[in-house]
Amino acid sequence: MPTARLDIEYDGSDFAGWSRQPGLRTVQDELERALATLLRQEVALTVAGRTDRGVHASGQVASYEGAPAEATALNAVLAPDVAVVACARAPDGFDARRDARSRTYCYRMLLRRPRSPFERGRALWWPRRIDVEALQACAAALPGTHDFTAFTPTQTEHVRFERDVLEARWERAGDLLEFWITADTFMRHMNRVLVGTMLEVATGRRSVESFEALLTGRPRAEAGDTAPAHGLYLVSVAY
Amino acid sequence: MPTARLDIEYDGSDFAGWSRQPGLRTVQDELERALATLLRQEVALTVAGRTDRGVHASGQVASYEGAPAEATALNAVLAPDVAVVACARAPDGFDARRDARSRTYCYRMLLRRPRSPFERGRALWWPRRIDVEALQACAAALPGTHDFTAFTPTQTEHVRFERDVLEARWERAGDLLEFWITADTFMRHMNRVLVGTMLEVATGRRSVESFEALLTGRPRAEAGDTAPAHGLYLVSVAY
Repeated sequence: MPTARLDIEYDGSDFAGWSRQPGLRTVQDELERALATLLRQEVALTVAGRTDRGVHASGQVASYEGAPAEATALNAVLAPDVAVVACARAPDGFDARRDARSRTYCYRMLLRRPRSPFERGRALWWPRRIDVEALQACAAALPGTHDFTAFTPTQTEHVRFERDVLEARWERAGDLLEFWITADTFMRHMNRVLVGTMLEVATGRRSVESFEALLTGRPRAEAGDTAPAHGLYLVSVAY
Repeated sequence: MPTARLDIEYDGSDFAGWSRQPGLRTVQDELERALATLLRQEVALTVAGRTDRGVHASGQVASYEGAPAEATALNAVLAPDVAVVACARAPDGFDARRDARSRTYCYRMLLRRPRSPFERGRALWWPRRIDVEALQACAAALPGTHDFTAFTPTQTEHVRFERDVLEARWERAGDLLEFWITADTFMRHMNRVLVGTMLEVATGRRSVESFEALLTGRPRAEAGDTAPAHGLYLVSVAY
């Protein structure tokens, strides 16, 4: 059986996340239905990053056992908020999830007083004061191996809470402020709780040191709020 | 009576254009209703650029006779696809339309094979070959005063067909190709017919010379198709 690799983009606004869920509209469902239509066989996708409800992807990767389908034909049957950028034969046994060495996510914020019609649902609107240097000090503490127990829900499927962060930084360009992070794998909500907690530091409600102290396996209750999903993008996966 | 100036952004996708029309959702209606709610008086807006159905604006300007309203309060009662960036007292008698010296528009195209969930409704998707140098040669012919009769519908309210183009150029950045044009004023559909006709040159169906020849007051039938509205943005107005 050949193996195929899909490179995918989606606007997560109207999806209940990646993973198939009965009665809900999910990216996995949408793609598996399109593939089944074109390939005339059932297809089960394995994905690099199981994004939550409302999270976007500009560089998601999935794989399946079967022949590749034509990307243009797939896009013709897919809804407009999801697109296949490439669909190609992969090395036998390629597994988009297991074979991924790292994932890169970006969290986008819009720093300006008025809200923006063009960035609604695409970036977290932040009309208040924010200490960008404090955010950068937090991000500087992230590279390396840490226990991220504080940054994922207590009720969780995870069994191992250490993650290896390869790179993390905040970047500003005009009104946009972006948090970029690359790690081996991420736990559920991890990026959004990281951003929510760093925002507490950036608004004077928490110190950089208290943020750093959370990276040693503290309980979830000690970290901050989960930032909204609509600012988060899965940008790329490295193999 | 004081005069107020409004700086406005809108995603034109779900609007039937700027101008009030019975039974249709327009930007003017939306703003006049919000202003009337806050100011407790009827307000009649004058606008720099009466954009068509589906056209966007990132730098629209309007004026009205009356006190300025608080931008944050206006945005709280406006729909999410329109935002007031500023609302301020203007010099007595300021008229957003009559006092404008020039308007700048941008037409955005996305050059890539797969369609994009993030640029749908925001840029014209162009998956085919395109001759960018031919587009640039066309744009180079635009600065100066020309008769744009060929670039506006035959049934029109305009009485004068000469327009003074101050600047025009195509710019490429990655997958995005943008046409920037600044002129004293624009006629109905003028930018979209310019783009549609230049695209005929860029796909080998028309010569640069035949495009240039249209700038001398030729009939509408000799120019090309009207490019889709969703690639067009009113970017700024100079006073």
